[in-house]
Amino acid sequence: MFTSTKEAFEKFRAIYEKIRAYRHALALLYTDGVTAAPAGAAEGRGKTSGILSEAEYNLHTSPEMKEAVAYLIAHKDELTPVERREVTEYNRANEFIASIPADEYVEYQVLVNKAESVWHKAKNDNDFKSFAPYLDKIFTSVRRFALYYKPYDDPYDTLLGMYERELTQKSTDAFFSALREKIVPLIRRVSEAPETDDSFIYRFYPAEVQRRFSDYLLDTIGIDREYCNIAETEHPFTNNFNKHDVRVTTHYYENNLISSMYSVIHEGGHALYELGSGDEYEGTVLSGGVSMGIHESQSRLYENLIGRSREYIDLIFPKLKEFFPEQLKGVDAHAFWLAVNKSRPSLIRTEADELTYALHVMVRYELEKEIIGGRLSVYDLPDAWAKKYREYLGVTVPDDTHGVLQDSHWSGGMVGYFPSYALGSAYGAQIMAAMKREIDVDGLIRAGKINEIVAWLTEKIYRHGCMFDPSALIESTCGEPFNPKYFTDYLENKYSMIIADLTAAGGK
Amino acid sequence: MFTSTKEAFEKFRAIYEKIRAYRHALALLYTDGVTAAPAGAAEGRGKTSGILSEAEYNLHTSPEMKEAVAYLIAHKDELTPVERREVTEYNRANEFIASIPADEYVEYQVLVNKAESVWHKAKNDNDFKSFAPYLDKIFTSVRRFALYYKPYDDPYDTLLGMYERELTQKSTDAFFSALREKIVPLIRRVSEAPETDDSFIYRFYPAEVQRRFSDYLLDTIGIDREYCNIAETEHPFTNNFNKHDVRVTTHYYENNLISSMYSVIHEGGHALYELGSGDEYEGTVLSGGVSMGIHESQSRLYENLIGRSREYIDLIFPKLKEFFPEQLKGVDAHAFWLAVNKSRPSLIRTEADELTYALHVMVRYELEKEIIGGRLSVYDLPDAWAKKYREYLGVTVPDDTHGVLQDSHWSGGMVGYFPSYALGSAYGAQIMAAMKREIDVDGLIRAGKINEIVAWLTEKIYRHGCMFDPSALIESTCGEPFNPKYFTDYLENKYSMIIADLTAAGGK
Repeated sequence: MFTSTKEAFEKFRAIYEKIRAYRHALALLYTDGVTAAPAGAAEGRGKTSGILSEAEYNLHTSPEMKEAVAYLIAHKDELTPVERREVTEYNRANEFIASIPADEYVEYQVLVNKAESVWHKAKNDNDFKSFAPYLDKIFTSVRRFALYYKPYDDPYDTLLGMYERELTQKSTDAFFSALREKIVPLIRRVSEAPETDDSFIYRFYPAEVQRRFSDYLLDTIGIDREYCNIAETEHPFTNNFNKHDVRVTTHYYENNLISSMYSVIHEGGHALYELGSGDEYEGTVLSGGVSMGIHESQSRLYENLIGRSREYIDLIFPKLKEFFPEQLKGVDAHAFWLAVNKSRPSLIRTEADELTYALHVMVRYELEKEIIGGRLSVYDLPDAWAKKYREYLGVTVPDDTHGVLQDSHWSGGMVGYFPSYALGSAYGAQIMAAMKREIDVDGLIRAGKINEIVAWLTEKIYRHGCMFDPSALIESTCGEPFNPKYFTDYLENKYSMIIADLTAAGGK
Repeated sequence: MFTSTKEAFEKFRAIYEKIRAYRHALALLYTDGVTAAPAGAAEGRGKTSGILSEAEYNLHTSPEMKEAVAYLIAHKDELTPVERREVTEYNRANEFIASIPADEYVEYQVLVNKAESVWHKAKNDNDFKSFAPYLDKIFTSVRRFALYYKPYDDPYDTLLGMYERELTQKSTDAFFSALREKIVPLIRRVSEAPETDDSFIYRFYPAEVQRRFSDYLLDTIGIDREYCNIAETEHPFTNNFNKHDVRVTTHYYENNLISSMYSVIHEGGHALYELGSGDEYEGTVLSGGVSMGIHESQSRLYENLIGRSREYIDLIFPKLKEFFPEQLKGVDAHAFWLAVNKSRPSLIRTEADELTYALHVMVRYELEKEIIGGRLSVYDLPDAWAKKYREYLGVTVPDDTHGVLQDSHWSGGMVGYFPSYALGSAYGAQIMAAMKREIDVDGLIRAGKINEIVAWLTEKIYRHGCMFDPSALIESTCGEPFNPKYFTDYLENKYSMIIADLTAAGGK
């Protein structure tokens, strides 16, 4: 059908441009659904999403697109490195979608759209039973899809690898065991130190003032608001329609100052990665973040390594006092820093501290592994969840709202995603260590010049979009392969300092 | 191709369902663009809208759809009345789109998407010049489209008729002349009476409290919030994606209490019409409001005939005092009623009072007529605008932000729409007069039972969707054909009462 790579590549690009338009519309329908839409609007949104998903699917599986991709792969030596990467990256993602029968794919899109609102209601009503049939269908579907895609691989390995290339149950088990070995004793040491007084965090902080504070926080990390807005939702996330249209979301609790504060900085990290994607890749397969793990490395780097540092708290504390003079009366920057770094085993992943966070992820990883492996029924999840929380975190789960219903991921079909959160923390610590060897990170934070940190990360990571694999990005940025030791070292240093401060002050 | 009307009708419905999905996505892209999107996101949104518009266009003009419609029209006697109406209504709207060449249609969608953000910036910067080339292209396009559609008709008559069936320059001239004859002397009488003190309206009303007040207002008129949300935008509008997903928008000014108050009630009226559409029509051509004129009759009925009545002010005044105790200290319900009915010629249409409003519309109507008629250049609009405002309203336009740039309509390609606003007021007054003959409207408002008024209107108008023409709806609801006399009588009665009150109190 094609007589030159030029012709085939132009066809490929033209169809891909349409695919992106459908993705934009679908992502907007989703974002709107969880931010601005009225509660009863799910059905109509589901119908529209179904029809647009089908149209997108038809573009992927059209004879023209298949022939263009096949022609380009057969002639890949004639392509530039960027063009070659576009085609192979497209093909990698598309092989998965193309392996799913059309009607199942459309049905699944409608399912997750509906499941999102069922989950939302179930969480509000502490009613796992109403959500369970949907969750069961979702797990069954993604397992089946994994087997369509790679019939001879373990389906959970396939799912893990879709969010973070080369990740397997074996490597993930090893990673979590390295973390556990260092983190568990550290948690014990922290629990033996005097407890931090963080009661002032839970005073009344009006949502309206928190909204303005969020704008300030995004300013501190150098986000260009011309291309990035904040909306409100139940479970914060970031969505990018293109590099000039990124949406951060958050949730305001009027009796908790730092919940929205750190969700805004976290999502701001995701946004910076997308906003910094190279202009030359815009509109192509290669625009935006390369993997969930690298994405989480950035959100966690801003949230924890910068946002919970002494330097950052010193930077923002005067402004914090301006926003909340009454609530923070008598509190100083050191006390505030201790408060935002208070570590105690808890129930909610998104509210968990930096130290215990990985254990929350481990619970989800192990449960997904069991369900996809066919060793656990979705209907038994609440009990299994409670058991693991008791075992790893020593806490009692009071109800499903604070247990298995807390996260939106599964309702959106994201199975295999969670490990990338913990991996992201570890990537982030390694990247930060490399950055500190080259520029004065602490000094820049203190001076309010976080934009120079953003510039360094843009140069090393953001501008490359999807041009390089995660492992290659880590090596080129850090000068060595991935090593979780940087993360455990960082935690050990930081929490040793905190323990010393708390012990010296006798817990005040 | 088709062998039965059943087969053809099923094909017609199936394609129409897809068309609705594209319209939903396109309407959402628009709504998002003017409510939640970051300012710099217009380009990517424009691209996506262009691609989805093209796909929608292709459905309208597909051989399958054309053949189905042609078959159904040829066999219309075999259809039920509802099916027949679906096909003829679809065909009426579609003939217009189908008459536009594909590339021009797509180009135009991209143009209006871009023009929306250019207009927005131009209005902020008082920079008509930057917007003029876009506006010129829009007027040129819609004129050309009108001629594609009806080559032998006057293009402005064609445009008027697209928003309100059977409207022509001749009938509109006659309508405005009937209004002018009664309204102009009434404006003179009002201006000779003592001036209402409405200074308390312009005190400081925090946006955050206005937001909560808006929720209360939507409650008073019986809106089911499960299916209807409020967002914020520059120029308020209402959008419905389907009867279970309606979006009202407003704009909060912290130094003006009644701007958002009456925009919320106005848009709430539009919303009620959409929310009340018959379930049996949902998803078909016949769902939702039948014309712009009938739509405006509802928004104006709630905004003015209910919202500015003594009974409604008495109903909400205690709550108003709760929301704004400091700002309304010393103000009573009678003074508040006089304030919301204060009439003075002014610059901004959306802020204009009930009495002078029609003159604002007349200015736009006459200017559109001149431009489409080729007797006025878009580039000369600012001068022509200022001249007419001086002539009809006796006010001096200080800049284009408060002049020709004030409305978003033209930037969205809505040329021929404005007259339906004035027509809506007149329809509304006639419908209200008919309703008052059947139920105790004033008593129901005082008792906070506006839902019974909504029920009456739903029975007579809303539930019918697009099943009947506007003229037939007016006749069946009012028992006689359209007559603007009800509107002028209403204004005369109301303002005579106001003049008497003001004169008796010596202007206090």
